[in-house]
Amino acid sequence: MEKILKKSIRIYNTLSKDEKKFLIENSKILCFKKGHLVHKGDETCLGLIAVNKGSLKAFISSDSGKQITLYKLYEGDICLFTAACKMKNIHFDINLICEEDCEILLLPVDLYEEIFKNSKKISNYINEIVMARFSDVMWILEQTVFHSLDKRLANYLLNLNKKDIEITHQKIADELGSAREVISRLLKHFENDNILKLNRNKITIINNNALLEIAEK
Amino acid sequence: MEKILKKSIRIYNTLSKDEKKFLIENSKILCFKKGHLVHKGDETCLGLIAVNKGSLKAFISSDSGKQITLYKLYEGDICLFTAACKMKNIHFDINLICEEDCEILLLPVDLYEEIFKNSKKISNYINEIVMARFSDVMWILEQTVFHSLDKRLANYLLNLNKKDIEITHQKIADELGSAREVISRLLKHFENDNILKLNRNKITIINNNALLEIAEK
Repeated sequence: MEKILKKSIRIYNTLSKDEKKFLIENSKILCFKKGHLVHKGDETCLGLIAVNKGSLKAFISSDSGKQITLYKLYEGDICLFTAACKMKNIHFDINLICEEDCEILLLPVDLYEEIFKNSKKISNYINEIVMARFSDVMWILEQTVFHSLDKRLANYLLNLNKKDIEITHQKIADELGSAREVISRLLKHFENDNILKLNRNKITIINNNALLEIAEK
Repeated sequence: MEKILKKSIRIYNTLSKDEKKFLIENSKILCFKKGHLVHKGDETCLGLIAVNKGSLKAFISSDSGKQITLYKLYEGDICLFTAACKMKNIHFDINLICEEDCEILLLPVDLYEEIFKNSKKISNYINEIVMARFSDVMWILEQTVFHSLDKRLANYLLNLNKKDIEITHQKIADELGSAREVISRLLKHFENDNILKLNRNKITIINNNALLEIAEK
């Protein structure tokens, strides 16, 4: 357990003996299959989650099923909003789903609250994580409000850092908070301009510079 | 000074003698005229700001001048992001403008950092404020991505809680992160449906129920 805590709580080594003991005694390991919804809006309130293996996606969804990805969590990342019920002033609901098979460290919600209130180091650490997530969401807001979709799509494709991208149009639409048809149209438009080539569930970038130009316009 | 601190720092009375002394000795009062840009992106880094009189608007803006309001600050409210340069993991820039003549309490940025690091109570309090602002921004993101503009406009008008609203279409567009022409068209559409009446810089709501219906659809 201590090995996992060291890996997922970056400040673990700086904690006091008592704080370490508290975490070791109270943390649990959970395993989930790919596709498992670990946290659903306000229906679950697990506690603090740290990723030991696999990856998860945090997203919000509308009544009509539209989704927008907020951020992704990989090994060593922490998710706080699965403890939202114990966090003052949090009035939004996120969902958290396993993108691969996952092994997760969980500090149950009441214990999370206890150590958060009593340890200045942990409180400051949590604060830093909140700021990072806040920055992620501000970036998405800016992208959504200020940048046109073609620019966002170009940025998205470039950030994947691959020539051959295996992905469905639906997946891209979900990530960018758009509709599949809109993304397909835009991709087709890029293909017509010889920027990329579309195959079934695969996108091949053939003119990286042109894509960069759109991303930076 | 103590009177102002009590008013603007909700937890002031619960602080230790030393913490109170620190705040009293290091806080400054600043006065600004309506329209003054108190904080501009990453160009200024003042510190923690508490509103004593007046109101301010926090917003982000794009290169093309498009704006979106994040939240407003009234008497007793605190703005943290004016100390962003000292906050780990904050990677976004907000602007802060006086909507009326303002009197502001400022805890300069280095002193803010000192008390934040050393006082668990203040660190937790700041954490709560960050969560509240985070919630505001999540609300805006949800409105922007998921709700159609007519619904957002109806909600906006209803939230002003007035029958006669003196406001320009440009102002509404700025608040909703839209364009003036789009808002004017929507308002005209509402007028055609006998939901409201438009006059120069004034909107009169004549069918509140119809507006509610749009807001809740």
